[in-house]
Amino acid sequence: MKKDIQEAIIQTVAAVKAGQPLVPSITNTVTINLVANTQLAVGGSAAMIYMTDEGVAMAEAGEAMYINLGTIFPVYEESIPATIQSLNNLKTPWVLDPVAVGMGKLRTKILQEMKEVMPTIIKGNATEIIGLAKQWDLTSDDQTLETKGVDSIHTTQEALSSAVALARHSQGAVVVSGPVDLVTNGQQLIYSHGGSSYMSSITGAGCALGGIITAYASKADPFIAAITGVNAFNYAGRLAEAKADGPASFQMHLIDFLYQADGGAISQVDFEVEEISHA
Amino acid sequence: MKKDIQEAIIQTVAAVKAGQPLVPSITNTVTINLVANTQLAVGGSAAMIYMTDEGVAMAEAGEAMYINLGTIFPVYEESIPATIQSLNNLKTPWVLDPVAVGMGKLRTKILQEMKEVMPTIIKGNATEIIGLAKQWDLTSDDQTLETKGVDSIHTTQEALSSAVALARHSQGAVVVSGPVDLVTNGQQLIYSHGGSSYMSSITGAGCALGGIITAYASKADPFIAAITGVNAFNYAGRLAEAKADGPASFQMHLIDFLYQADGGAISQVDFEVEEISHA
Amino acid sequence: MKKDIQEAIIQTVAAVKAGQPLVPSITNTVTINLVANTQLAVGGSAAMIYMTDEGVAMAEAGEAMYINLGTIFPVYEESIPATIQSLNNLKTPWVLDPVAVGMGKLRTKILQEMKEVMPTIIKGNATEIIGLAKQWDLTSDDQTLETKGVDSIHTTQEALSSAVALARHSQGAVVVSGPVDLVTNGQQLIYSHGGSSYMSSITGAGCALGGIITAYASKADPFIAAITGVNAFNYAGRLAEAKADGPASFQMHLIDFLYQADGGAISQVDFEVEEISHA
Repeated sequence: MKKDIQEAIIQTVAAVKAGQPLVPSITNTVTINLVANTQLAVGGSAAMIYMTDEGVAMAEAGEAMYINLGTIFPVYEESIPATIQSLNNLKTPWVLDPVAVGMGKLRTKILQEMKEVMPTIIKGNATEIIGLAKQWDLTSDDQTLETKGVDSIHTTQEALSSAVALARHSQGAVVVSGPVDLVTNGQQLIYSHGGSSYMSSITGAGCALGGIITAYASKADPFIAAITGVNAFNYAGRLAEAKADGPASFQMHLIDFLYQADGGAISQVDFEVEEISHA
Repeated sequence: MKKDIQEAIIQTVAAVKAGQPLVPSITNTVTINLVANTQLAVGGSAAMIYMTDEGVAMAEAGEAMYINLGTIFPVYEESIPATIQSLNNLKTPWVLDPVAVGMGKLRTKILQEMKEVMPTIIKGNATEIIGLAKQWDLTSDDQTLETKGVDSIHTTQEALSSAVALARHSQGAVVVSGPVDLVTNGQQLIYSHGGSSYMSSITGAGCALGGIITAYASKADPFIAAITGVNAFNYAGRLAEAKADGPASFQMHLIDFLYQADGGAISQVDFEVEEISHA
Repeated sequence: MKKDIQEAIIQTVAAVKAGQPLVPSITNTVTINLVANTQLAVGGSAAMIYMTDEGVAMAEAGEAMYINLGTIFPVYEESIPATIQSLNNLKTPWVLDPVAVGMGKLRTKILQEMKEVMPTIIKGNATEIIGLAKQWDLTSDDQTLETKGVDSIHTTQEALSSAVALARHSQGAVVVSGPVDLVTNGQQLIYSHGGSSYMSSITGAGCALGGIITAYASKADPFIAAITGVNAFNYAGRLAEAKADGPASFQMHLIDFLYQADGGAISQVDFEVEEISHA
């Protein structure tokens, strides 16, 4: 099983480097440059848009697409629903990053539509994954969700049941990013190790992870795409930390190592696979 | 007096590192990433928004907020007035960077509302501080203000009377950034030295300074927050220049040194305190 | 001839460093920071805006302006036509980067207006130059244009006739960026060599090139401004590649070398000048 996954990682990394797939985004203005540069580093072709007809055009032209809700503009009320509808009509995979779920009317409305027009992969920190499962009424937990801006205040393990519920609902994959990263397809769990504590000292590590998972989703099934992205980040993050003097040099080295990484190295990152036992 | 300020700087730097306060922003698209990364480097938690209800939510969730007018979007007509009203109702400190004051109807309208719904700290280059005092009719000087885009064409000393007038009007602190930085609360003046000539060869040095002052404003009174931010920048800037080969490597080292700096080092930056003599 | 061009390059580089001309932009959110930082690196003063009245104000205050269509916002429907009309009324040079020509109604409408209200310099990759010439009905070639997001799928040589047609129509200069860069004024062709394969592994190399050409356009005629920008990029790119470990360190070194470069070095980049033979 783990060996099959490693083999699939190697193939996915190579396919993206060879194919340079167009993987457009609707993403936030804070980390948009980092998302594009990390996608390019792993071999993807990036393109960012805001307008409705351009979202539809990109849904048609792209091999996978990334929707990140970090910053919301008024035009999103129309452009995101139209874009995701096109993506699902075309069966083009897309990745959702539900940044700051729960904040603001438009963000909430857009995320509610995604309960029906579902993403292929959902990637968030623990707080975001718990929050989205709660908004979609997939968890029985009725405690009020506390949040702190865009940063996680929950552990990966606290988000486990929400992640599994989201994966089963969307019939895709879910990533919970954190000191240990969790990936699930609703049947299996993968825990991936590595990375760096600097990840939380730069803005957009999570966004960039979503961006490269999108690149891999163009060439692999959701579960493999997600674990490939997570492992690539854990691989490059560990090496980057060793060369860094602080968060800014860490970010530079992170991108450089993502660029240098081949599938063999990425597949060797420390991770475990578990089957979810049936209750 | 100076010793008390140094002690307060040490405590402020430590409190932000320990507390990781949420310090949201409405800021420009040019330097938004740099603002977030410098806020994270000193220990803050960054979150950027555009929408009206999100501004209000952030005013409630944040411990201090940053409003930077570098680039104006139509949605600001509603979102900024609502956000600053919430901030002032809640007595949450906020920092204004009046970039390009005088350009455009909406920017002028927003800044005019701030004469009544006042910021806790105003940070600008000399031209911006002179321009804002003029727009708010706080100076008797009736010469027409010349500007050159977003860059200063005045010296810090030329902005002195405007800075004092703004601080007295807003009952807060005012920072005039430049080769020598000036901080005033209307009663005292601090001149802080250090930094680097590279600051004017990167975009957003001033914006980033506003961002870290906001982080410090969450844990200190306006005058101490302002001088802590200015000194942190002067400390990191001097060290970064020594390692830099040009403006891009300077920026990387600047963030790395901001991350590494502790309160002891920041408090030792060369600065002088003067009482404003009563006329 | 080549020697005259080299002499003009030296004068242009020096004039921008000495004059620090204000060269504002309406540009995309992906690479807006890189555009500003590269403009500053060569000596320009950057300022980015979105609003209509601010576009008009910047057309009046700036010595040259840059319009890059990488990401489109609704407000552009009004702000870009008003800005370019002001620029042309004032005879202020401006540079167009027609990113993703052919995608979306508003982008197409804006570019169509530019057929009459013409840019001074057009800079694009081969696919964009072919696409713009086609949209403006300047080429007899009636094949459908294929595109792949924002990246070029054509060679510089394939864009030659389109570039010449655009230059003759606009009576300005046209740049086709690529592994070998082409500059033409409709009468002469310049091929410039150097640069780096890393240019296509970072986002915004093309945008940044447009930004520095704009800086040079404030102090030179369109043809000289274009070749000065292209040569500066080829000079800095080659040196940056030699020091880089990947695309992120490449970008840092690129900006540092742009900052360090003087006109003498930039004028010595390998380039050839050809007269277009009359058919």
